[in-house]
Order: sequence, then C-alpha cells, then structure tokens
Amino acid sequence: MNAIGVDVGGTKIAAGIVNPEGEILDGVRYPTPQSPKKLVEAIARAVSEVGDGSEVGGVCLAVPGLILAQENRVVYSPNLRAVEGIRLKEELEPELGFPLTIENDNNAAAWGEFRFGAGSGSKHLVYVGLGTGIGGGVVTDGRLLRGAQGAGGELGHVTVQATGPRCACGNRGCLEALASGTSIRRRAHEAAAEHPDSALGRLASRRRVLGEDVTELAREGDEVALSVLEEAGTWLGVGLAGIVNVFNPEVVAVGGGAIEAGELILKAARREVMLRARPPSRDLAEVKVATLCPKSGVLGAAALARDASSGEYLLG
Amino acid sequence: MNAIGVDVGGTKIAAGIVNPEGEILDGVRYPTPQSPKKLVEAIARAVSEVGDGSEVGGVCLAVPGLILAQENRVVYSPNLRAVEGIRLKEELEPELGFPLTIENDNNAAAWGEFRFGAGSGSKHLVYVGLGTGIGGGVVTDGRLLRGAQGAGGELGHVTVQATGPRCACGNRGCLEALASGTSIRRRAHEAAAEHPDSALGRLASRRRVLGEDVTELAREGDEVALSVLEEAGTWLGVGLAGIVNVFNPEVVAVGGGAIEAGELILKAARREVMLRARPPSRDLAEVKVATLCPKSGVLGAAALARDASSGEYLLG
Repeated sequence: MNAIGVDVGGTKIAAGIVNPEGEILDGVRYPTPQSPKKLVEAIARAVSEVGDGSEVGGVCLAVPGLILAQENRVVYSPNLRAVEGIRLKEELEPELGFPLTIENDNNAAAWGEFRFGAGSGSKHLVYVGLGTGIGGGVVTDGRLLRGAQGAGGELGHVTVQATGPRCACGNRGCLEALASGTSIRRRAHEAAAEHPDSALGRLASRRRVLGEDVTELAREGDEVALSVLEEAGTWLGVGLAGIVNVFNPEVVAVGGGAIEAGELILKAARREVMLRARPPSRDLAEVKVATLCPKSGVLGAAALARDASSGEYLLG
Repeated sequence: MNAIGVDVGGTKIAAGIVNPEGEILDGVRYPTPQSPKKLVEAIARAVSEVGDGSEVGGVCLAVPGLILAQENRVVYSPNLRAVEGIRLKEELEPELGFPLTIENDNNAAAWGEFRFGAGSGSKHLVYVGLGTGIGGGVVTDGRLLRGAQGAGGELGHVTVQATGPRCACGNRGCLEALASGTSIRRRAHEAAAEHPDSALGRLASRRRVLGEDVTELAREGDEVALSVLEEAGTWLGVGLAGIVNVFNPEVVAVGGGAIEAGELILKAARREVMLRARPPSRDLAEVKVATLCPKSGVLGAAALARDASSGEYLLG
C-alpha cells in the first residue's frame, strides 16, 4: 500500500505519497511556518493534498531534533522551534484519518537509504548526514536503532580528537567540529588566509567563501581547496572507522549538503577507515554517497510509515 | 530450562550449568590446552561434567576473538590460537547432544549483565570490558548487536584522540590505548619516573608496577596513583560519551580486571560523559561497575544458549 512521508525542515515542508517501490507518485512543498498552529495546518494541508483520494497505509513525519520515541513528541529542535512541545500526533492524527508516526530526520534518511537507496538489499547500514552539522541514523539487522529514548544514532558528537577544536555543542573535537559543512567553511577561511595566492585565497579576498565554492575550486584543481576537503574527509574517516568497528555494517551511506563534494571527501574518508577500522568490518563496509538526497526525508518517512503499519519497523 | 555456559579463555576453561534465574548450579574449571584436539576434548569433558544427568536446553561457548556469526566459527583469536579454524560446532554438537552456539566473550558478558547483572530489567545496555585490552558488547532494544559478520560491538578501537599514543592494533589514540589496563600500567611507569618520591615512584624503583598496585596505592591516598587512574577514567569517559550518544542506553556496565579500581576510574568517566554526551542520553545512562565478573562469561553464555533455543536471542 502507498504511504505518505513528510520532511518537516527548518525552511520547507515537503510531502510525498510513495509506493512500495519507492517512487514518489505525487509531491508538494511549502515554506515552513514559524507558529505552532500554522505549522500543524501546513502539515495537514500537505498531507491531504498528496493523499487525496488514495488509499494510504500511514503517515510519518521526519523532523529535525530529538523525538521521544515512546511519546511520539519532538522535545528539542533548535532549527524548528515551532515544533517543540506540539502534540503532533494528537493534533494531526484525527484530522488526517491515517496512523501517524514521528521520527528524527536522520533516522528517516537512514531508513530511506536502507529501503530504497544506497543500502537497498543490505541489513546493516549506517547513514551520516554531512550538513551544517553532522547527523546520523543506524539500521542494524534490519531494525532502526533508536535507543532507550529515541535519541540513538547520534553520530555527530562522537569525540575523535579530545583536544580538538570547539564544537557548536560546547565540547571539543566532536566529529561535527572537524568534518561538517561548517567546519569545511571555517578551514577554508583559514587556508585562504595562509595561501592568499591560491584560487581559494583570491576568492576569499573578494567575498565570503561557501561550501560549494570549495568544492568547485577543488574540482578545478586548486590544491588548497582540495586539501581542505581532504582534511575534512580524513576526519570523517576517523569517525567512520570507530562507527564501522562498532556496527560492522555492510554500507555506510554519506548524505547531506556537504556530500556534493563526493569523492573529494570520501576518498580520504575511505583511506582512513582502511587504516583505522579493524578486519573484517573495515573490509566489508562500503563507504558511499547516499543516493536519495534531497528526497531521503520524504522517502524514508514514507517507508517508515508503511513499515510501522506492518510491524516491520520496531518502535524502541 | 537450565543451560550450559562455557567461558573458553586463554588460560582456563570454565563451564557452568545455569538455571533461568541466573544461578550456577554446578561448575568446573580446567586449564586451557594449547592443541586444537585437546581443546575440543576439554570443552566436551567440561560440558558433560556439569550437564551430567540434567535436562539441558543448549550450550554456548564464549570465546575471545572474532566469531563469524553465520558460520559459528572463530576466525581470529590472538589469545587462543588453538581455537582458530576448528569447526567447533560440527565437532562438538554431535558429541554433546545439545544445540551449540558460539559467541564472542564480550558479547556474552554483555548478555549476562543484561539478563542477570548490572542491566537486569533494562532493554538497552552497553558493556565495556577493561582488561589488558578493551572489549565491548551492546544490547539494543533487547537484542545483541552483532553486525553483518558478528564483529559488531567492538568498542575498544574507537578513536578518541587521533594524534594520541600508539595502540596495540597499530593505530593511534584508540580508547584501548588510553584507558585499558595496559595503558594504566604504562602511564603508571611514566608517572613514577616523573614523581620518584611518590609512593608509586618508590614502588617502581623496587619492582615492576602492576595494575593492582596502582589501585592499592590510590586507595591508600597516593596522589600520583590517583591521577593515573583518574586520567584513564577521563579517557574512558571520552569514549563512553560517544558510545552513549550513539546507543542512548539505560546502563553502561564496565567490567574486566581493571575495574577493580571501581570508582577511582568511574567517577572521572562519569564526569566526562556528563560533559561530552548530549541530553537526554547523558542524563539517562547509568555508568556502573558490572556485577557478574568474573562469572559473566559463563552466565552470559548460558543465557545466550537458552535464549537462542527459545528464539529470543536473534542471531544476526
């Protein structure tokens, strides 16, 4: 049966009705309202538009932040304050007429990659979302790892260099502080100042350098831009090595905005995994680009909605 | 029904018949033979002795090293070379007349703590074995995490300080290189040289310092010995913080020989977890001493044997 996935992001809401093969049959997209009441209305409208007239097995919302699994409630969402504390399930379910589940966006993306994407056919997958921050989701033995409160799969704040740079979370040397899009931009500025005659240095003297700029200059062969991405990839690999040891996964799928750099990051990450992770895990784990971005939220949420209704997706 | 657990260690084999309440009704212990044939014979003898005349639901061997889950075979065991490559299941099962499973010793200890020990009543537990090295086992949502090949739960070689000291595995800055019994002894020697007038320094001038010595001197109030354990505990906490973020467990049970130091290590570890892990995981996770040592192998293996026969222990 078809199911509806809704990606409730900080700036936009994307909803899609998805068939069991992972095809989005119909989709809509709205800007994210900033008031709780309007947010609920926008989600309800998006769901009813894509679900209109179809048989629907269920709806799942993929939401950034911390979802208390047992309570189906978002308790902490720094990029989507309006959603904190709304009783989304109670408010939306009666109106929609479909069973509703709520899941963390990175967990949903992991489930999407597992069902339809880079991990299709596997039973053990780790998803890492490289964006402004670093998020994660883990599928082990065909089940989503949620932990006791639904907060599991948090891969971005694993310490990889205890004495390393300060992270947004307040600690030092988190994976996020060394390999996220934000850290790539920071390192790009430092590298530009160290090498003012490089293409990166010349660009930085004219305007603020974005992540895309670093990727573009690296593709054009700028050594300084290349080294910035390689450094981020190496740190990503340090973190992934530990994660590969811990989960012995078949697939590590790396998604998120910063993975536009693709092999410019992943090549160094793979090298570090081979250096640091242990056999047989390091030899099995295939580190690759996630394939569903930017639709992983909608597709993963829809798959979760369907699997929740059939009991295949075990709620912690 | 009762089940038999066998802890096949590098120096001794301990077997016990265990009831569903986790009581060892009868146990034997033998030195570990170094030839594959004699090893199989010793295991068979130990099992038949404790199982003699009883109804037995199954047998599980807890073995150090890498067990390929699907093949029920030990492929790599540096401390128990004799076991590598023996077809333990095929050789032993017909002779014993009970269903046989094989599991990594740290996974078995984790399952023991989950069923009968520090994590009894929980559904989400992480076990860390602090010995010569550092091993781990993870129970998530009531299931043993094995990963695609049975190599999952390897917590000792997570990188916590990428530029840190060399580990026995060849890499730098693994948790094992900073918080294991071996690293405590190494740091004790360094600290003794730095502080020759401390109690630790005076002992080190007379003979080789063991882990127990450091604990004993710390209990007697020697500041230098205390600082060595606190440093190890802090590093343990850096690693545990990441592990707590990743698994959102209810209980972190720390066992193994080095945990004789108890709170002298765990207090610093808890402080670091509170500093580095994220809410709500850091507030939920109870970091405590494992309660079954040194019987966690036998008890965990017996519990696995029983749960395997009832289908409760899902083989990856």
